[in-house]
Amino acid sequence: MTEMKIIFLGTSGAIPTNDRNLSSIVIWRGDELLLFDTGEGMQRNFIKSRLPMNKKMKIFISHIHGDHCIGLLGLLQTLSMNGRTLPIKIYGDAKVSEFVNANLRIINFYLNFEIILYVISGDGLVTSESDYKVTCCQGKHSIISYSFCLEEFDRPGIFNMDIARKYHIPEGELFSKLQSGSDIIINNKIIRSKRIVGPPRPGRKIGISGDTRPTKKLQQFFKKCDVLIFDSTFGDKERLKAKQTFHSTATEAAILASNAKVKKLFLTHFSARYSDVSVLVEEAKKIFNDVESAEDLKIAEVKYSE
Amino acid sequence: MTEMKIIFLGTSGAIPTNDRNLSSIVIWRGDELLLFDTGEGMQRNFIKSRLPMNKKMKIFISHIHGDHCIGLLGLLQTLSMNGRTLPIKIYGDAKVSEFVNANLRIINFYLNFEIILYVISGDGLVTSESDYKVTCCQGKHSIISYSFCLEEFDRPGIFNMDIARKYHIPEGELFSKLQSGSDIIINNKIIRSKRIVGPPRPGRKIGISGDTRPTKKLQQFFKKCDVLIFDSTFGDKERLKAKQTFHSTATEAAILASNAKVKKLFLTHFSARYSDVSVLVEEAKKIFNDVESAEDLKIAEVKYSE
Repeated sequence: MTEMKIIFLGTSGAIPTNDRNLSSIVIWRGDELLLFDTGEGMQRNFIKSRLPMNKKMKIFISHIHGDHCIGLLGLLQTLSMNGRTLPIKIYGDAKVSEFVNANLRIINFYLNFEIILYVISGDGLVTSESDYKVTCCQGKHSIISYSFCLEEFDRPGIFNMDIARKYHIPEGELFSKLQSGSDIIINNKIIRSKRIVGPPRPGRKIGISGDTRPTKKLQQFFKKCDVLIFDSTFGDKERLKAKQTFHSTATEAAILASNAKVKKLFLTHFSARYSDVSVLVEEAKKIFNDVESAEDLKIAEVKYSE
Repeated sequence: MTEMKIIFLGTSGAIPTNDRNLSSIVIWRGDELLLFDTGEGMQRNFIKSRLPMNKKMKIFISHIHGDHCIGLLGLLQTLSMNGRTLPIKIYGDAKVSEFVNANLRIINFYLNFEIILYVISGDGLVTSESDYKVTCCQGKHSIISYSFCLEEFDRPGIFNMDIARKYHIPEGELFSKLQSGSDIIINNKIIRSKRIVGPPRPGRKIGISGDTRPTKKLQQFFKKCDVLIFDSTFGDKERLKAKQTFHSTATEAAILASNAKVKKLFLTHFSARYSDVSVLVEEAKKIFNDVESAEDLKIAEVKYSE
């Protein structure tokens, strides 16, 4: 059981508004923070959300547009001033590394911790840990822009203690073997792991689109996400504008979510022209039922599907 | 009569808080905006203050620390997206130009307007217009950090219509001559300008400190300011910290203001440790009476002294 929640630190597209900061999402999973984009000013909502300053942290930058990356500099500085010592891994295309390196040099701020920059240069695996991986898929935007999936590996099945007792299996090493999928021999009898241990239980899958048009490739990439957070810059009336600027409408996000059979959809990256985004939610609801607007500081718990 | 008001767009030092954004001040004078520092996220308060996007604009950056300059990038982008076409002049040391140029290249955002970068390389005149000038003076900080003064030139004296009528001076060209200080001859009689026109009336002087310790040089520089806005990062209890980090306490700001015989003092750039800055205001008040804390979105009209 690893707790996981999504906290929206910025939900406005391109220009901030009174209520919405520029793009940033954090997934707080167990003892680690995974940040997706760091729009200017996101550190303020990071502070307001009382997020921990010195936990394991990875930062993924979808693309080098200012409203998605500029806040990285202030965040690093604030983390350092608040005593961070643990390293931070930052993932983005080559431009992101250039952005960080150039500014660290010019602004010349001292950091108490190490920054490790990883360059993403195509679709596929970005990083992997013992119990999850993050993959990326290029979207369709005016510049290279990646979407990300955080995917947990399957958890072991449920261990049936009653059956184990029936076979008089002693607790300890043999339990572990069975749990890990190995069959064992006891009293000259083979006991199959799958007799005692249920089928593996699926982990959770969270999808986060960068700025993008909806594409078939992304639909495949986001297949069966538990939660999908998708570019919904515009409403139906501005569908041409969405096409011209390589963004999506709420309806398009909903169509993709429906086709990808995701469980829940969050709309985000709203154009500053919408002071009230309920119209966009209504448009999406016509296509896909479990849809909600992302709001600054909103927290969404992500439960296991079973 | 040129209207002038100061609007605080960010009043926190180093780290933003729930109520305070990072450093930025705008002087809205007549038809022009003069911005002093552009801390991360200041564009949000720029938008909240409903400041005009396409007016004549100059931006002065005191120093290259992130909390004073990072917001420049997002501001430029937002101005462009809101249809700005007029050029912007930006003044700062060589690092500021490097910061702007590097990021314009890396983030590669398109601007609809021209940026003109001026490098400040020492104390003295920064820029001058027909009716005011901006000068700078290096403070004492951990890196090069400039303080600025906006100083209006004297306005012509008051034209005494009653006396002019007594001398039967016809309105028009001769009035202008007298107003501009020239004597005229009418009916073979010399009429001295100073007989009709009062003494020149002083313009206003606004001082804005960058991050700095108080110094004798700055005290001289800010002499007789109508309004002085000064680094007050710390309270008396942290006076050692102020020294170590090259900032000032509210008390030190008040002593400088008193010695410089300024009319009004605003304390700003408060450390994030003070959720309530009234203690700092009280400390300053013991030294200097007309003192007030700068607050995000606060507006201060600057009247002529006579």
